[in-house]
Amino acid sequence: MSGLAAARRRRADRARQVADLLRGEIVRGRFRNGRLPREAVLAREFGASRNTVRAALGLLRDEGLVDRCPGIGTTIAAEKYPHGLHRLLGLAETLHEHGVVTNQVRTMTLMEPPAAVRQRLGLADGEQVVYLERLRRLNGLPLSLDLTYLVRDVGEPLFDADLEHNDIFVLLEHIAGRPLGMAELTLEAVNADPHTASVLEVPRGAALLMVERLTHLSDGRPVDLEFVRFRGDRLTMRGHLRRSGDEHPA
Amino acid sequence: MSGLAAARRRRADRARQVADLLRGEIVRGRFRNGRLPREAVLAREFGASRNTVRAALGLLRDEGLVDRCPGIGTTIAAEKYPHGLHRLLGLAETLHEHGVVTNQVRTMTLMEPPAAVRQRLGLADGEQVVYLERLRRLNGLPLSLDLTYLVRDVGEPLFDADLEHNDIFVLLEHIAGRPLGMAELTLEAVNADPHTASVLEVPRGAALLMVERLTHLSDGRPVDLEFVRFRGDRLTMRGHLRRSGDEHPA
Repeated sequence: MSGLAAARRRRADRARQVADLLRGEIVRGRFRNGRLPREAVLAREFGASRNTVRAALGLLRDEGLVDRCPGIGTTIAAEKYPHGLHRLLGLAETLHEHGVVTNQVRTMTLMEPPAAVRQRLGLADGEQVVYLERLRRLNGLPLSLDLTYLVRDVGEPLFDADLEHNDIFVLLEHIAGRPLGMAELTLEAVNADPHTASVLEVPRGAALLMVERLTHLSDGRPVDLEFVRFRGDRLTMRGHLRRSGDEHPA
Repeated sequence: MSGLAAARRRRADRARQVADLLRGEIVRGRFRNGRLPREAVLAREFGASRNTVRAALGLLRDEGLVDRCPGIGTTIAAEKYPHGLHRLLGLAETLHEHGVVTNQVRTMTLMEPPAAVRQRLGLADGEQVVYLERLRRLNGLPLSLDLTYLVRDVGEPLFDADLEHNDIFVLLEHIAGRPLGMAELTLEAVNADPHTASVLEVPRGAALLMVERLTHLSDGRPVDLEFVRFRGDRLTMRGHLRRSGDEHPA
Protein backbone atom coordinates (compact mmCIF):
# COMPACT_ATOMS: atom_id res chain seq x y z
CA MET A 1 0.00 0.00 0.00
CA SER A 2 1.34 3.47 -0.88
CA GLY A 3 1.78 6.05 1.86
CA LEU A 4 -1.21 7.97 0.53
CA ALA A 5 -3.47 4.89 0.47
CA ALA A 6 -2.40 4.01 4.01
CA ALA A 7 -3.19 7.54 5.18
CA ARG A 8 -6.65 7.41 3.54
CA ARG A 9 -7.33 4.10 5.17
CA ARG A 10 -6.30 5.40 8.58
CA ARG A 11 -8.60 8.36 8.09
CA ALA A 12 -11.53 6.08 7.18
CA ASP A 13 -10.88 3.99 10.29
CA ARG A 14 -10.69 7.08 12.47
CA ALA A 15 -13.82 8.56 10.86
CA ARG A 16 -15.78 5.40 11.67
CA GLN A 17 -14.63 5.64 15.28
CA VAL A 18 -15.77 9.27 15.60
CA ALA A 19 -19.03 8.59 13.73
CA ASP A 20 -19.96 5.75 16.10
CA LEU A 21 -19.44 7.91 19.19
CA LEU A 22 -21.36 10.83 17.68
CA ARG A 23 -24.20 8.55 16.57
CA GLY A 24 -24.58 7.31 20.13
CA GLU A 25 -24.65 10.85 21.48
CA ILE A 26 -27.24 11.95 18.89
CA VAL A 27 -29.50 8.98 19.65
CA ARG A 28 -29.19 9.55 23.41
CA GLY A 29 -30.23 13.18 22.92
CA ARG A 30 -27.06 15.14 23.69
CA PHE A 31 -27.80 17.77 21.03
CA ARG A 32 -31.23 18.89 22.19
CA ASN A 33 -31.09 22.06 20.10
CA GLY A 34 -30.82 19.98 16.94
CA ARG A 35 -27.40 21.32 16.02
CA LEU A 36 -23.93 19.76 16.29
CA PRO A 37 -20.86 21.78 17.34
CA ARG A 38 -18.59 23.16 14.62
CA GLU A 39 -16.01 20.87 13.00
CA ALA A 40 -13.13 22.56 14.82
CA VAL A 41 -14.84 22.01 18.17
CA LEU A 42 -15.57 18.37 17.40
CA ALA A 43 -11.99 17.89 16.17
CA ARG A 44 -10.70 19.10 19.54
CA GLU A 45 -13.21 16.99 21.47
CA PHE A 46 -12.33 13.80 19.60
CA GLY A 47 -8.61 14.48 19.27
CA ALA A 48 -9.02 14.07 15.51
CA SER A 49 -8.13 16.15 12.46
CA ARG A 50 -10.80 18.31 10.84
CA ASN A 51 -10.63 16.08 7.77
CA THR A 52 -11.46 13.07 9.93
CA VAL A 53 -14.37 14.90 11.58
CA ARG A 54 -15.65 15.96 8.16
CA ALA A 55 -15.49 12.33 6.98
CA ALA A 56 -17.31 11.18 10.15
CA LEU A 57 -20.09 13.72 9.63
CA GLY A 58 -20.30 12.55 6.01
CA LEU A 59 -20.91 8.99 7.22
CA LEU A 60 -23.73 10.16 9.49
CA ARG A 61 -25.22 12.22 6.65
CA ASP A 62 -25.20 9.15 4.40
CA GLU A 63 -27.08 7.28 7.16
CA GLY A 64 -29.76 9.98 7.03
CA LEU A 65 -29.05 11.04 10.61
CA VAL A 66 -27.72 14.57 9.99
CA ASP A 67 -27.90 17.26 7.33
CA ARG A 68 -24.88 19.39 6.37
CA CYS A 69 -25.28 22.85 4.89
CA PRO A 70 -22.49 25.28 4.08
CA GLY A 71 -22.78 28.29 6.35
CA ILE A 72 -25.31 26.58 8.62
CA GLY A 73 -23.31 23.56 9.78
CA THR A 74 -24.52 20.15 10.85
CA THR A 75 -28.09 19.68 12.03
CA ILE A 76 -29.98 16.60 13.13
CA ALA A 77 -32.12 15.41 10.20
CA ALA A 78 -34.51 13.03 11.89
CA GLU A 79 -35.14 11.83 15.39
CA LYS A 80 -34.29 8.17 15.89
CA TYR A 81 -36.71 6.48 18.25
CA PRO A 82 -35.88 3.82 20.83
CA HIS A 83 -38.01 0.67 20.72
CA GLY A 84 -37.74 -1.20 24.01
CA LEU A 85 -36.27 -4.69 23.80
CA HIS A 86 -36.68 -5.36 27.53
CA ARG A 87 -40.40 -6.10 27.32
CA LEU A 88 -42.96 -7.10 24.71
CA LEU A 89 -44.60 -3.83 23.70
CA GLY A 90 -46.66 -2.57 20.80
CA LEU A 91 -45.38 0.35 18.78
CA ALA A 92 -47.78 2.98 20.18
CA GLU A 93 -47.08 1.72 23.71
CA THR A 94 -43.30 1.95 23.35
CA LEU A 95 -43.29 5.30 21.50
CA HIS A 96 -46.03 7.12 23.42
CA GLU A 97 -43.54 9.75 24.62
CA HIS A 98 -42.47 10.50 21.07
CA GLY A 99 -45.75 11.09 19.33
CA VAL A 100 -48.83 9.58 17.76
CA VAL A 101 -48.73 6.27 15.92
CA THR A 102 -51.30 5.80 13.14
CA ASN A 103 -51.80 2.66 11.09
CA GLN A 104 -52.91 2.52 7.48
CA VAL A 105 -54.48 -0.85 6.74
CA ARG A 106 -53.28 -1.88 3.26
CA THR A 107 -54.86 -5.34 3.28
CA MET A 108 -57.04 -7.34 5.63
CA THR A 109 -58.40 -10.69 4.64
CA LEU A 110 -59.30 -14.17 5.80
CA MET A 111 -57.03 -16.70 4.08
CA GLU A 112 -55.89 -20.30 3.87
CA PRO A 113 -52.32 -20.02 5.21
CA PRO A 114 -49.29 -21.71 3.66
CA ALA A 115 -47.67 -24.52 5.67
CA ALA A 116 -44.95 -22.15 6.93
CA VAL A 117 -47.61 -20.09 8.76
CA ARG A 118 -49.69 -23.09 9.85
CA GLN A 119 -46.72 -24.75 11.54
CA ARG A 120 -45.63 -21.68 13.47
CA LEU A 121 -49.17 -20.93 14.68
CA GLY A 122 -49.82 -24.62 15.47
CA LEU A 123 -52.86 -24.87 13.18
CA ALA A 124 -54.44 -27.91 11.56
CA ASP A 125 -54.84 -28.31 7.79
CA GLY A 126 -57.70 -26.19 6.50
CA GLU A 127 -57.79 -23.74 9.41
CA GLN A 128 -57.90 -20.17 8.19
CA VAL A 129 -56.02 -17.13 9.48
CA VAL A 130 -56.54 -13.38 9.31
CA TYR A 131 -53.86 -11.66 7.22
CA LEU A 132 -53.30 -8.00 7.89
CA GLU A 133 -50.88 -5.56 6.30
CA ARG A 134 -50.29 -2.14 7.79
CA LEU A 135 -48.13 0.87 7.07
CA ARG A 136 -47.39 2.44 10.44
CA ARG A 137 -46.55 6.09 10.87
CA LEU A 138 -45.21 8.11 13.75
CA ASN A 139 -46.36 11.73 13.64
CA GLY A 140 -47.35 11.15 10.02
CA LEU A 141 -44.00 9.80 8.78
CA PRO A 142 -43.62 6.15 7.71
CA LEU A 143 -41.90 4.05 10.36
CA SER A 144 -42.67 0.41 9.55
CA LEU A 145 -44.46 -1.96 7.21
CA ASP A 146 -46.06 -4.84 9.15
CA LEU A 147 -47.29 -8.18 7.77
CA THR A 148 -49.37 -10.02 10.37
CA TYR A 149 -50.93 -13.49 10.51
CA LEU A 150 -53.45 -14.04 13.30
CA VAL A 151 -55.26 -17.21 14.41
CA ARG A 152 -58.87 -16.88 13.35
CA ASP A 153 -60.68 -16.72 16.71
CA VAL A 154 -58.66 -13.74 18.01
CA GLY A 155 -58.06 -12.21 14.56
CA GLU A 156 -61.59 -12.11 13.15
CA PRO A 157 -63.01 -9.61 15.70
CA LEU A 158 -60.35 -7.15 14.44
CA PHE A 159 -62.44 -6.61 11.30
CA ASP A 160 -64.69 -4.43 13.50
CA ALA A 161 -61.91 -2.78 15.55
CA ASP A 162 -60.26 0.63 15.17
CA LEU A 163 -56.98 -0.60 13.73
CA GLU A 164 -55.94 2.86 12.66
CA HIS A 165 -55.38 4.10 16.22
CA ASN A 166 -54.62 0.96 18.23
CA ASP A 167 -51.77 -1.51 18.63
CA ILE A 168 -52.76 -5.07 17.73
CA PHE A 169 -51.30 -6.28 21.04
CA VAL A 170 -53.75 -4.27 23.12
CA LEU A 171 -56.70 -5.33 20.96
CA LEU A 172 -55.68 -9.02 21.12
CA GLU A 173 -55.55 -8.97 24.91
CA HIS A 174 -58.98 -7.41 25.01
CA ILE A 175 -60.42 -10.00 22.59
CA ALA A 176 -58.70 -13.01 24.20
CA GLY A 177 -59.54 -11.86 27.73
CA ARG A 178 -56.03 -12.63 28.91
CA PRO A 179 -52.61 -10.97 28.62
CA LEU A 180 -50.00 -11.85 26.04
CA GLY A 181 -47.13 -13.96 27.33
CA MET A 182 -43.90 -14.65 25.51
CA ALA A 183 -42.71 -13.73 22.02
CA GLU A 184 -39.93 -15.30 19.97
CA LEU A 185 -37.98 -12.68 18.12
CA THR A 186 -35.56 -12.70 15.19
CA LEU A 187 -33.81 -9.48 14.15
CA GLU A 188 -32.05 -8.92 10.86
CA ALA A 189 -30.73 -6.04 8.79
CA VAL A 190 -31.87 -6.09 5.14
CA ASN A 191 -31.73 -3.67 2.23
CA ALA A 192 -35.07 -2.24 1.10
CA ASP A 193 -36.25 -3.64 -2.22
CA PRO A 194 -37.60 -0.98 -4.63
CA HIS A 195 -41.28 -1.55 -3.82
CA THR A 196 -40.80 -1.58 -0.04
CA ALA A 197 -38.59 1.51 -0.37
CA SER A 198 -41.37 3.39 -2.12
CA VAL A 199 -43.94 2.36 0.52
CA LEU A 200 -41.65 3.42 3.39
CA GLU A 201 -40.47 6.53 1.50
CA VAL A 202 -36.77 5.68 1.71
CA PRO A 203 -34.12 5.36 -1.03
CA ARG A 204 -33.83 1.96 -2.72
CA GLY A 205 -31.49 -0.24 -0.78
CA ALA A 206 -31.88 1.69 2.48
CA ALA A 207 -31.05 -0.44 5.51
CA LEU A 208 -34.13 -1.79 7.29
CA LEU A 209 -34.38 -3.47 10.67
CA MET A 210 -36.43 -6.58 9.99
CA VAL A 211 -38.22 -8.27 12.88
CA GLU A 212 -39.93 -11.63 12.79
CA ARG A 213 -41.99 -12.11 15.92
CA LEU A 214 -44.18 -15.00 17.06
CA THR A 215 -46.33 -13.91 19.98
CA HIS A 216 -48.11 -16.23 22.40
CA LEU A 217 -50.95 -15.65 24.82
CA SER A 218 -50.13 -16.09 28.51
CA ASP A 219 -51.41 -19.69 28.28
CA GLY A 220 -48.68 -20.47 25.73
CA ARG A 221 -50.83 -20.58 22.59
CA PRO A 222 -49.16 -18.87 19.57
CA VAL A 223 -51.64 -16.40 18.07
CA ASP A 224 -49.73 -13.71 16.15
CA LEU A 225 -46.93 -14.15 13.58
CA GLU A 226 -45.49 -10.89 12.33
CA PHE A 227 -42.90 -9.67 9.84
CA VAL A 228 -42.03 -6.04 10.51
CA ARG A 229 -39.72 -3.82 8.44
CA PHE A 230 -38.62 -0.78 10.43
CA ARG A 231 -36.88 2.12 8.73
CA GLY A 232 -33.27 1.89 9.86
CA ASP A 233 -32.88 5.66 9.92
CA ARG A 234 -35.78 6.18 12.33
CA LEU A 235 -35.58 3.40 14.89
CA THR A 236 -33.19 1.75 17.31
CA MET A 237 -33.89 -1.25 19.52
CA ARG A 238 -32.72 -0.94 23.10
CA GLY A 239 -32.45 -3.51 25.79
CA HIS A 240 -30.41 -5.20 28.46
CA LEU A 241 -28.71 -8.55 28.54
CA ARG A 242 -27.32 -10.42 31.49
CA ARG A 243 -24.36 -12.77 31.50
CA SER A 244 -26.36 -15.23 33.60
CA GLY A 245 -29.44 -15.10 31.37
CA ASP A 246 -32.20 -17.66 30.82
CA GLU A 247 -30.95 -20.35 28.48
CA HIS A 248 -34.47 -21.65 27.91
CA PRO A 249 -37.12 -19.16 28.94
CA ALA A 250 -40.47 -20.75 29.68
CA MET B 1 -53.41 3.88 -10.79
CA SER B 2 -53.74 1.92 -14.08
CA GLY B 3 -54.83 -1.70 -14.00
CA LEU B 4 -51.32 -2.80 -14.91
CA ALA B 5 -49.68 -0.68 -12.18
CA ALA B 6 -52.15 -2.05 -9.63
CA ALA B 7 -51.38 -5.62 -10.71
CA ARG B 8 -47.62 -4.99 -10.41
CA ARG B 9 -48.12 -3.54 -6.99
CA ARG B 10 -50.20 -6.49 -5.87
CA ARG B 11 -47.50 -8.83 -7.12
CA ALA B 12 -44.80 -6.91 -5.22
CA ASP B 13 -46.89 -7.11 -2.05
CA ARG B 14 -47.47 -10.83 -2.51
CA ALA B 15 -43.80 -11.43 -3.32
CA ARG B 16 -42.77 -9.75 -0.07
CA GLN B 17 -45.16 -12.01 1.84
CA VAL B 18 -43.75 -15.17 0.26
CA ALA B 19 -40.15 -13.95 0.64
CA ASP B 20 -40.62 -13.34 4.38
CA LEU B 21 -41.98 -16.84 4.97
CA LEU B 22 -39.23 -18.45 2.88
CA ARG B 23 -36.53 -16.40 4.62
CA GLY B 24 -37.75 -17.68 7.98
CA GLU B 25 -37.70 -21.28 6.75
CA ILE B 26 -34.20 -20.89 5.31
CA VAL B 27 -32.85 -19.38 8.53
CA ARG B 28 -34.50 -22.09 10.63
CA GLY B 29 -32.84 -24.75 8.45
CA ARG B 30 -35.75 -26.28 6.55
CA PHE B 31 -33.68 -26.79 3.39
CA ARG B 32 -30.84 -28.86 4.83
CA ASN B 33 -29.71 -30.02 1.40
CA GLY B 34 -29.04 -26.40 0.40
CA ARG B 35 -31.60 -26.41 -2.38
CA LEU B 36 -35.09 -24.88 -2.58
CA PRO B 37 -38.00 -26.66 -4.29
CA ARG B 38 -38.82 -25.74 -7.89
CA GLU B 39 -40.88 -22.61 -8.58
CA ALA B 40 -43.97 -24.63 -9.49
CA VAL B 41 -43.79 -26.51 -6.18
CA LEU B 42 -43.34 -23.30 -4.20
CA ALA B 43 -46.20 -21.68 -6.13
CA ARG B 44 -48.51 -24.50 -5.04
CA GLU B 45 -47.27 -24.42 -1.46
CA PHE B 46 -47.79 -20.67 -1.11
CA GLY B 47 -50.95 -20.45 -3.20
CA ALA B 48 -49.18 -17.90 -5.38
CA SER B 49 -48.51 -17.49 -9.09
CA ARG B 50 -45.15 -18.55 -10.50
CA ASN B 51 -44.45 -14.92 -11.31
CA THR B 52 -44.94 -14.03 -7.65
CA VAL B 53 -42.67 -16.87 -6.51
CA ARG B 54 -40.04 -15.77 -9.01
CA ALA B 55 -40.24 -12.22 -7.66
CA ALA B 56 -39.97 -13.51 -4.07
CA LEU B 57 -36.87 -15.55 -4.91
CA GLY B 58 -35.46 -12.45 -6.61
CA LEU B 59 -35.87 -10.52 -3.34
CA LEU B 60 -34.01 -13.22 -1.41
CA ARG B 61 -31.27 -13.28 -4.05
CA ASP B 62 -30.86 -9.51 -3.71
CA GLU B 63 -30.47 -10.02 0.06
CA GLY B 64 -27.60 -12.41 -0.66
CA LEU B 65 -29.48 -15.33 0.87
CA VAL B 66 -29.94 -17.50 -2.23
CA ASP B 67 -28.37 -17.99 -5.66
CA ARG B 68 -30.45 -18.63 -8.78
CA CYS B 69 -29.03 -20.45 -11.77
CA PRO B 70 -30.90 -21.45 -14.93
CA GLY B 71 -31.07 -25.21 -15.09
CA ILE B 72 -29.90 -25.63 -11.50
CA GLY B 73 -32.60 -23.75 -9.62
CA THR B 74 -32.41 -21.92 -6.32
CA THR B 75 -29.66 -22.78 -3.84
CA ILE B 76 -28.80 -21.34 -0.45
CA ALA B 77 -25.91 -18.91 -0.91
CA ALA B 78 -24.70 -18.43 2.65
CA GLU B 79 -25.66 -19.75 6.03
CA LYS B 80 -27.14 -17.10 8.28
CA TYR B 81 -26.08 -17.61 11.88
CA PRO B 82 -28.21 -17.01 14.97
CA HIS B 83 -26.67 -14.80 17.67
CA GLY B 84 -28.45 -15.32 20.98
CA LEU B 85 -30.20 -12.27 22.41
CA HIS B 86 -31.37 -14.09 25.54
CA ARG B 87 -28.01 -13.94 27.28
CA LEU B 88 -24.80 -11.93 27.11
CA LEU B 89 -22.45 -14.08 25.04
CA GLY B 90 -19.28 -13.56 23.07
CA LEU B 91 -19.26 -14.42 19.37
CA ALA B 92 -17.24 -17.64 19.65
CA GLU B 93 -19.41 -18.74 22.58
CA THR B 94 -22.68 -18.17 20.72
CA LEU B 95 -21.50 -19.61 17.38
CA HIS B 96 -19.48 -22.60 18.63
CA GLU B 97 -21.85 -25.03 16.88
CA HIS B 98 -21.36 -23.26 13.58
CA GLY B 99 -17.60 -23.12 13.28
CA VAL B 100 -14.42 -21.42 14.32
CA VAL B 101 -14.26 -17.71 15.08
CA THR B 102 -10.91 -16.00 14.44
CA ASN B 103 -10.11 -12.37 15.16
CA GLN B 104 -7.72 -10.21 13.20
CA VAL B 105 -6.48 -7.35 15.38
CA ARG B 106 -6.37 -4.24 13.17
CA THR B 107 -5.42 -1.78 15.91
CA MET B 108 -4.63 -2.00 19.61
CA THR B 109 -3.49 1.01 21.52
CA LEU B 110 -3.60 2.86 24.81
CA MET B 111 -5.36 6.20 24.30
CA GLU B 112 -6.82 9.28 25.95
CA PRO B 113 -10.54 8.74 25.30
CA PRO B 114 -12.95 11.45 24.12
CA ALA B 115 -15.60 12.62 26.59
CA ALA B 116 -18.24 10.37 24.95
CA VAL B 117 -16.23 7.29 25.96
CA ARG B 118 -15.17 8.65 29.36
CA GLN B 119 -18.74 9.33 30.39
CA ARG B 120 -20.07 5.91 29.40
CA LEU B 121 -17.22 4.08 31.15
CA GLY B 122 -17.44 6.34 34.22
CA LEU B 123 -13.82 7.53 33.96
CA ALA B 124 -12.19 10.68 35.34
CA ASP B 125 -10.41 13.24 33.16
CA GLY B 126 -7.00 11.99 32.08
CA GLU B 127 -7.71 8.28 32.61
CA GLN B 128 -6.65 6.24 29.61
CA VAL B 129 -8.43 3.35 27.87
CA VAL B 130 -7.36 0.48 25.67
CA TYR B 131 -8.75 0.81 22.13
CA LEU B 132 -9.01 -2.36 20.11
CA GLU B 133 -10.26 -2.91 16.58
CA ARG B 134 -10.89 -6.42 15.28
CA LEU B 135 -12.16 -7.99 12.09
CA ARG B 136 -13.92 -11.17 13.16
CA ARG B 137 -14.33 -14.15 10.86
CA LEU B 138 -16.37 -17.31 11.08
CA ASN B 139 -14.76 -20.19 9.22
CA GLY B 140 -12.54 -17.67 7.49
CA LEU B 141 -15.32 -15.37 6.16
CA PRO B 142 -15.76 -11.84 7.52
CA LEU B 143 -18.65 -11.59 9.96
CA SER B 144 -18.14 -8.40 11.96
CA LEU B 145 -15.95 -5.37 12.50
CA ASP B 146 -15.66 -4.56 16.23
CA LEU B 147 -14.47 -1.29 17.81
CA THR B 148 -13.84 -1.76 21.54
CA TYR B 149 -12.95 0.63 24.38
CA LEU B 150 -11.82 -1.03 27.61
CA VAL B 151 -11.04 0.50 31.01
CA ARG B 152 -7.29 0.38 31.48
CA ASP B 153 -6.91 -2.08 34.38
CA VAL B 154 -8.82 -4.89 32.67
CA GLY B 155 -7.84 -3.88 29.14
CA GLU B 156 -4.06 -3.56 29.46
CA PRO B 157 -3.40 -7.28 30.22
CA LEU B 158 -4.99 -8.04 26.81
CA PHE B 159 -1.78 -6.80 25.12
CA ASP B 160 -0.29 -10.17 26.18
CA ALA B 161 -3.38 -12.32 25.48
CA ASP B 162 -4.26 -14.49 22.50
CA LEU B 163 -6.87 -12.20 20.99
CA GLU B 164 -6.93 -14.09 17.72
CA HIS B 165 -8.63 -17.15 19.19
CA ASN B 166 -10.52 -15.85 22.22
CA ASP B 167 -13.64 -13.77 22.90
CA ILE B 168 -12.87 -10.60 24.85
CA PHE B 169 -15.67 -11.49 27.30
CA VAL B 170 -13.95 -14.69 28.44
CA LEU B 171 -10.58 -12.94 28.76
CA LEU B 172 -12.09 -10.05 30.73
CA GLU B 173 -13.67 -12.40 33.26
CA HIS B 174 -10.34 -14.15 33.70
CA ILE B 175 -8.49 -10.86 34.20
CA ALA B 176 -11.10 -9.28 36.47
CA GLY B 177 -11.53 -12.47 38.52
CA ARG B 178 -15.29 -12.09 38.44
CA PRO B 179 -18.06 -12.70 35.90
CA LEU B 180 -19.57 -10.08 33.66
CA GLY B 181 -22.97 -8.82 34.74
CA MET B 182 -25.33 -6.71 32.66
CA ALA B 183 -24.94 -5.10 29.25
CA GLU B 184 -26.90 -2.23 27.73
CA LEU B 185 -27.59 -2.85 24.08
CA THR B 186 -28.67 -0.69 21.15
CA LEU B 187 -29.40 -2.31 17.78
CA GLU B 188 -29.67 -0.46 14.49
CA ALA B 189 -29.66 -1.23 10.78
CA VAL B 190 -27.22 0.89 8.75
CA ASN B 191 -25.87 0.83 5.20
CA ALA B 192 -22.19 -0.05 4.85
CA ASP B 193 -20.02 2.91 3.88
CA PRO B 194 -17.49 2.14 1.11
CA HIS B 195 -14.53 1.57 3.46
CA THR B 196 -16.44 -0.67 5.88
CA ALA B 197 -17.88 -2.56 2.89
CA SER B 198 -14.42 -3.32 1.61
CA VAL B 199 -13.23 -4.51 5.05
CA LEU B 200 -16.27 -6.78 5.47
CA GLU B 201 -16.18 -7.87 1.81
CA VAL B 202 -19.77 -6.81 1.05
CA PRO B 203 -21.15 -4.51 -1.67
CA ARG B 204 -21.24 -0.79 -0.86
CA GLY B 205 -24.44 0.07 0.93
CA ALA B 206 -25.08 -3.50 2.14
CA ALA B 207 -27.30 -3.59 5.22
CA LEU B 208 -25.37 -4.08 8.46
CA LEU B 209 -26.69 -4.90 11.90
CA MET B 210 -25.01 -2.36 14.14
CA VAL B 211 -24.73 -3.09 17.86
CA GLU B 212 -23.60 -0.67 20.54
CA ARG B 213 -23.00 -2.51 23.78
CA LEU B 214 -21.85 -1.28 27.19
CA THR B 215 -20.88 -4.23 29.35
CA HIS B 216 -20.50 -4.17 33.15
CA LEU B 217 -18.76 -6.51 35.54
CA SER B 218 -21.00 -8.32 38.02
CA ASP B 219 -20.24 -5.58 40.58
CA GLY B 220 -21.87 -3.02 38.26
CA ARG B 221 -18.72 -1.31 37.00
CA PRO B 222 -18.82 -0.54 33.23
CA VAL B 223 -15.64 -1.88 31.62
CA ASP B 224 -16.26 -2.49 27.92
CA LEU B 225 -17.88 -0.17 25.35
CA GLU B 226 -18.25 -1.75 21.91
CA PHE B 227 -19.47 -0.79 18.46
CA VAL B 228 -20.02 -3.89 16.35
CA ARG B 229 -21.01 -4.01 12.66
CA PHE B 230 -22.36 -7.43 11.72
CA ARG B 231 -22.86 -8.39 8.08
CA GLY B 232 -26.63 -8.39 7.62
CA ASP B 233 -26.47 -11.29 5.20
CA ARG B 234 -24.69 -13.59 7.64
CA LEU B 235 -26.26 -12.99 11.04
CA THR B 236 -29.60 -12.86 12.79
CA MET B 237 -30.23 -11.99 16.43
CA ARG B 238 -32.65 -14.28 18.25
CA GLY B 239 -34.29 -13.89 21.57
CA HIS B 240 -37.42 -13.92 23.66
CA LEU B 241 -39.48 -11.13 25.12
CA ARG B 242 -42.14 -11.29 27.77
CA ARG B 243 -45.17 -9.07 28.07
CA SER B 244 -44.53 -8.75 31.82
CA GLY B 245 -40.84 -7.90 31.43
CA ASP B 246 -38.51 -5.94 33.68
CA GLU B 247 -39.12 -2.24 33.24
CA HIS B 248 -35.88 -1.34 35.00
CA PRO B 249 -33.50 -4.27 35.24
CA ALA B 250 -30.94 -3.94 38.00
